[in-house]
Amino acid sequence: MSLPNHFELLGQSGAARTGRLTTPHGVVRTPAFMPVGTAGAMKGLHWREVRDAGADIVLGNTYHLMLRPGAERIAALGGLQRFTTWNGPMLTDSGGFQVMSLAQLRKVTEQAVKFRSHIDGAAIELSPERAIEVQLLLGSDIAMQLDECVRLPAERDDILRAMELSLRWAERCKRAFERAPEGHMLFGIVQGGDIPELRHASARGLIEIGFHGYAIGGLAVGEPQEVMLAMIEEAAPILPADRPRYLMGVGTPEDILEAVARGIDMFDCVMPTRNGRHGVAFTRFGPVNLRNARHADDPRPLDDSSEWPSTRNCSRAYLHHLVKSGETLGAMLLSEINIAYYQSLMAGMRAAIAQGRFAEFREQTHADWARGDIAAL
Amino acid sequence: MSLPNHFELLGQSGAARTGRLTTPHGVVRTPAFMPVGTAGAMKGLHWREVRDAGADIVLGNTYHLMLRPGAERIAALGGLQRFTTWNGPMLTDSGGFQVMSLAQLRKVTEQAVKFRSHIDGAAIELSPERAIEVQLLLGSDIAMQLDECVRLPAERDDILRAMELSLRWAERCKRAFERAPEGHMLFGIVQGGDIPELRHASARGLIEIGFHGYAIGGLAVGEPQEVMLAMIEEAAPILPADRPRYLMGVGTPEDILEAVARGIDMFDCVMPTRNGRHGVAFTRFGPVNLRNARHADDPRPLDDSSEWPSTRNCSRAYLHHLVKSGETLGAMLLSEINIAYYQSLMAGMRAAIAQGRFAEFREQTHADWARGDIAAL
Repeated sequence: MSLPNHFELLGQSGAARTGRLTTPHGVVRTPAFMPVGTAGAMKGLHWREVRDAGADIVLGNTYHLMLRPGAERIAALGGLQRFTTWNGPMLTDSGGFQVMSLAQLRKVTEQAVKFRSHIDGAAIELSPERAIEVQLLLGSDIAMQLDECVRLPAERDDILRAMELSLRWAERCKRAFERAPEGHMLFGIVQGGDIPELRHASARGLIEIGFHGYAIGGLAVGEPQEVMLAMIEEAAPILPADRPRYLMGVGTPEDILEAVARGIDMFDCVMPTRNGRHGVAFTRFGPVNLRNARHADDPRPLDDSSEWPSTRNCSRAYLHHLVKSGETLGAMLLSEINIAYYQSLMAGMRAAIAQGRFAEFREQTHADWARGDIAAL
Repeated sequence: MSLPNHFELLGQSGAARTGRLTTPHGVVRTPAFMPVGTAGAMKGLHWREVRDAGADIVLGNTYHLMLRPGAERIAALGGLQRFTTWNGPMLTDSGGFQVMSLAQLRKVTEQAVKFRSHIDGAAIELSPERAIEVQLLLGSDIAMQLDECVRLPAERDDILRAMELSLRWAERCKRAFERAPEGHMLFGIVQGGDIPELRHASARGLIEIGFHGYAIGGLAVGEPQEVMLAMIEEAAPILPADRPRYLMGVGTPEDILEAVARGIDMFDCVMPTRNGRHGVAFTRFGPVNLRNARHADDPRPLDDSSEWPSTRNCSRAYLHHLVKSGETLGAMLLSEINIAYYQSLMAGMRAAIAQGRFAEFREQTHADWARGDIAAL
């Protein structure tokens, strides 16, 4: 059954696309990068900074939120957007990926995945139906189907089994989503590991079921970048051109640029905030490790041509000092600097695609990264 | 020798005073609360938030900064205001207090205090002359004399010895400060423990030497509040009425209100940020412990009449969740909420003093605190 389409394609440049996705909490400009607010909070950033940096939409992790503070509680408090004060578009994952990576004693059956909470050891069952129920309780604008994600490299049999199970779960999620309020969306997830024909079969199966949008999952889980890009090239052309395409859990600025070049519209990743906490800044000229002693006496900012105030105004010496001293402000500044960089990269791509000059933008961006950071003083 | 006076008394209400202190980096409205940016950073707050909350001046800790990143380095980078991007008035302590509380193997002689760095064990000597040199290198607007602070309760002989040593160090600091750039200030510190006549002798000795302003030190070090207030009552009336008076390391909102009632103009304390990191919010109706389970389902903000957005907009349930989950954002929000509360208390006192109704303001503020937090849902 076909679902209403809330995505409007506004322009294309090569395979790269730009568009608008309309959610109950506002419009998302694509290509979009969704900062990850795991447990209802962005690590080291206020929501106003996420907004100021140019993010239209953020991601919340169902696994964390269902364990603490609990989906029913968030529903009673008016939903995740109101609870967190973010008040903008929010996508939630299904919880499946974190169950695989964080929970203890997990067991996957046809019916559901059973696991113990990493917080208090409580026994929990997450079925496709419960994954949708939780996401509806959270009030997310875009819910994800429950799927099983296989870490690569893996045997073909394991990849096939997980892909087929994910398709059956996709159907059950779609049925469970029928009672969702108008305007809310459900995305299916293409699985199939690094095997092209399994990716094809997964995409075709999902299209037959019919979703508001389509994600590509099971990538950025240990495989080389060329495998990831090859799998996007297998899956993206099969997906309906009028629906949004979301590459889950990706990635580096280069991953994102190259995935947009292959027709992807949406991304999420903890990298900008996580690397920020570890002292690494993403800049127009590539990553800069502020722990390095070369910055200790350097009064220059990370990038004096940046539009983001902290990127332009804070000296490398100050950032180095904050990182070395373990001051929270170091993580706060580098996290916002990185989120702002990611958002400026997305804005640059959107503008370039709208003007039909994405290839040129891509080349210039690669050239800037290749130039690298300014020389030490 | 009399030093130029940069303080202008604008109004008085009872013993409470309001005024303006003009520093090389801007004007400080008094009574003033100085948030503490220990190592060149406010824990959990951006400088723009410190400014937005209404702080005119902040405090930096000489001990931390001289160890890391080093005073000579900060001087080469243009001084502490530029280094940190705060760019406003800054007071630095002398380093003496932290040497007493943090350093290892310290030894006080007539010449200096010798200690080992708590970071790398390096042997360091802090003389009155070096304490001033370091503060001039940092470029602080207000430098403090090196003193010896005795933890209470203490023997009279120990208090007397430390007070007299502090007076001799005060003289040496004043001489060392002669080469300070115009407009920069040096404050002497009244010591004398909990013994009125030693407080008198210390204050008179400092006035004879002559400083831009006078601090009362060696309080809030373990003694009951009434002892602290009694010592302020002993010292403040002796201090020159036309000079600023600074009560070091104080304190709770009530300590500050009562000290202003006794003629104090300036304060600093880590309490708003430290308690914020521990889940406690300061509000118009007293402290609120967000760890308490009573807040878990409470959609109400801390104080819906507050002018500070986070105090008015974030639900108790959200703050409780952030604190329980150990999310950085919890500490960030509570730290800014607390700094904003302290600043609003200072602004309320300044306005009340200017209008000659401080007694009424003080009574109303005590009544609000006594009312306490709203009842649980």
